[in-house]
Amino acid sequence: MNGKTVSVVGLGDMGTALADALLAAGHRVTVWNRTAAKADPLVAKGAIRADTAADAVLASKLVVVCLLDYDSVSQVLGPHTDVLAGRTLVNLTNGTPGQAREMAAWAAEHGADYLDGGIMAVPPMIGKPGAFVLYSGPSGAFETWQPVLDLFGESRYVGDDAGAAALQDLALLSSMYGVIAGSLHALALVRSTGASAREFAPTLSKWLQGVVTWPVEAAERIDTGDYDKDVVSNLSMQSAGFANHFIAAEEQGISAELLLPVHQLMQRRVADGHGHEDFVGVIELLKR
Amino acid sequence: MNGKTVSVVGLGDMGTALADALLAAGHRVTVWNRTAAKADPLVAKGAIRADTAADAVLASKLVVVCLLDYDSVSQVLGPHTDVLAGRTLVNLTNGTPGQAREMAAWAAEHGADYLDGGIMAVPPMIGKPGAFVLYSGPSGAFETWQPVLDLFGESRYVGDDAGAAALQDLALLSSMYGVIAGSLHALALVRSTGASAREFAPTLSKWLQGVVTWPVEAAERIDTGDYDKDVVSNLSMQSAGFANHFIAAEEQGISAELLLPVHQLMQRRVADGHGHEDFVGVIELLKR
Ligand SMILES: NC(=O)c1ccc[n+]([C@@H]2O[C@H](COP(=O)([O-])OP(=O)(O)OC[C@H]3O[C@@H](n4cnc5c(N)ncnc54)[C@H](OP(=O)(O)O)[C@@H]3O)[C@@H](O)[C@H]2O)c1
Ligand SMILES: NC(=O)c1ccc[n+]([C@@H]2O[C@H](COP(=O)([O-])OP(=O)(O)OC[C@H]3O[C@@H](n4cnc5c(N)ncnc54)[C@H](OP(=O)(O)O)[C@@H]3O)[C@@H](O)[C@H]2O)c1
Repeated sequence: MNGKTVSVVGLGDMGTALADALLAAGHRVTVWNRTAAKADPLVAKGAIRADTAADAVLASKLVVVCLLDYDSVSQVLGPHTDVLAGRTLVNLTNGTPGQAREMAAWAAEHGADYLDGGIMAVPPMIGKPGAFVLYSGPSGAFETWQPVLDLFGESRYVGDDAGAAALQDLALLSSMYGVIAGSLHALALVRSTGASAREFAPTLSKWLQGVVTWPVEAAERIDTGDYDKDVVSNLSMQSAGFANHFIAAEEQGISAELLLPVHQLMQRRVADGHGHEDFVGVIELLKR
Repeated sequence: MNGKTVSVVGLGDMGTALADALLAAGHRVTVWNRTAAKADPLVAKGAIRADTAADAVLASKLVVVCLLDYDSVSQVLGPHTDVLAGRTLVNLTNGTPGQAREMAAWAAEHGADYLDGGIMAVPPMIGKPGAFVLYSGPSGAFETWQPVLDLFGESRYVGDDAGAAALQDLALLSSMYGVIAGSLHALALVRSTGASAREFAPTLSKWLQGVVTWPVEAAERIDTGDYDKDVVSNLSMQSAGFANHFIAAEEQGISAELLLPVHQLMQRRVADGHGHEDFVGVIELLKR
């Protein structure tokens, strides 16, 4: 064994991909999973099976955690606060900024460094071009472990507030689910005519390539709150046109439920007297 | 005047851009708009003002209509069925497949050819690279007028069913609003930390560039209904993670209403026993 020792706690699809990337790079990898059988393929490739989560933590200075959610992390690590001192926990479990900060405080209390991470890739992409992982927490811990973390994908350090990575992760994911929701509606509509998704999908993806500049184009209006200048697609017109999505869905026998909230925002904004303005002013209604 | 005579009915932002493109190419352009003053800038550039919509129709063999919605088209052209015979109406007003078919039948009854169109561009893009317009209706009429229509952007003929262009138009627009809705949520979340939209937008757009291949990647599962094979991001995990969007929105003081329906679909699909499958199976719930 030539590499450093790393532990991976949680061997779902993602944890397994992370452990695989570490093994492939020659690291000594200790693994643990609640359902022990999920470790078998990794053990066959040279990973060391820990019998308990505490043993997994004890085995390495760097402990990568990737479980379903923060509740499972608390269930798994909560009883083992005595083994944390002097280690770095890198938690790649999806969570919120608040959850990340709380766990950072808990780790600090027990003498561990804590980095929170958001993986922007699916498991088969781990370690491949295009994959990146957001990290936040103490920059020293990040710098120490970056050479190992880089095995998962490009490491992007976004700040020492433990919650920063989770926030950007959720922001990026929410936009992704927007793409997916809109595309699901589009494909359901097209399929209602008897056409296949495979026929239309390339047209759809190509069209969306042109659309994804939207955040960059909208950003200045959003920051300045000036929704009035140089309007070329006024909100009233867009809201009137949007109604056609619901009529067409009815005609074609599909549900338009994915499109409802954006229309409701548009209608509220028109009712508030902003129909002549740019669409993007609806963002005002997301502020609480 | 060297070009052909074309009439444009409706001089909102879009109709004005269409008339501008025709004028710039040297066509003789007759224009009409309910609010007559909107014709002034075009008249200053050489367009001919028609006093009534009927006069505008009478002035040309090719009549381009671009009004708010089909109701306004009916209000404007409905009383003038006597002037339609022998002309080609190109209706670039946003509508549904059913509305387009109904208007095609009405036009045929009165001796006019009818092409329905969906403009996939904002007004400043008209006639510029990247703009395209979907057309459906009789292929003969399309071929006759295509050289003129090409002035608006790339002309894409999608079939003789008058409703075909509206269907594809709405499909593409629904996916666009998905991108916008997801991006609005993302930017609202990022701004809740005090960061600017301008700071984060380039990261967001770049990330989305990688995401827009989703329709192509999902299409085979959708067509075959096989949501079970090679799952790397199971729906239960995604649904559990999705809950973090609502917790984070609460933490950050923004509304997550734009994300609600996609989570509801995920939860219903998990409750139906499909949690171990790929996310994309939620499309089954859009069928009625
Ligand atoms: N897959 C992706 O595409 C992807 C992408 C980016 C980020 N992520 C994030 O990575 C994390 C893991 O995702 P995944 O795809 O690996 O999910 P997964 O395949 O469903 O695996 C879930 C893991 O969590 C464990 N677990 C769940 N509840 C537990 C509990 N109460 N106590 C102990 N262990 C528990 C499971 O153990 P058992 O095997 O015993 O059930 C399993 O190891 C999630 O936070 C996810 O959001 C995933
Ligand atoms: N702008 C875009 O980005 C864009 C992109 C693609 C497609 N489109 C489509 O193009 C069409 C026009 O959009 P636009 O941006 O030009 O909208 P707009 O600037 O709001 O103009 C609306 C036009 O419709 C007319 N109108 C509305 N109700 C009428 C009625 N009852 N009778 C007579 N005329 C009526 C208005 O006349 P007045 O001037 O008298 O009010 C005006 O000419 C819409 O269907 C839209 O979906 C627009």
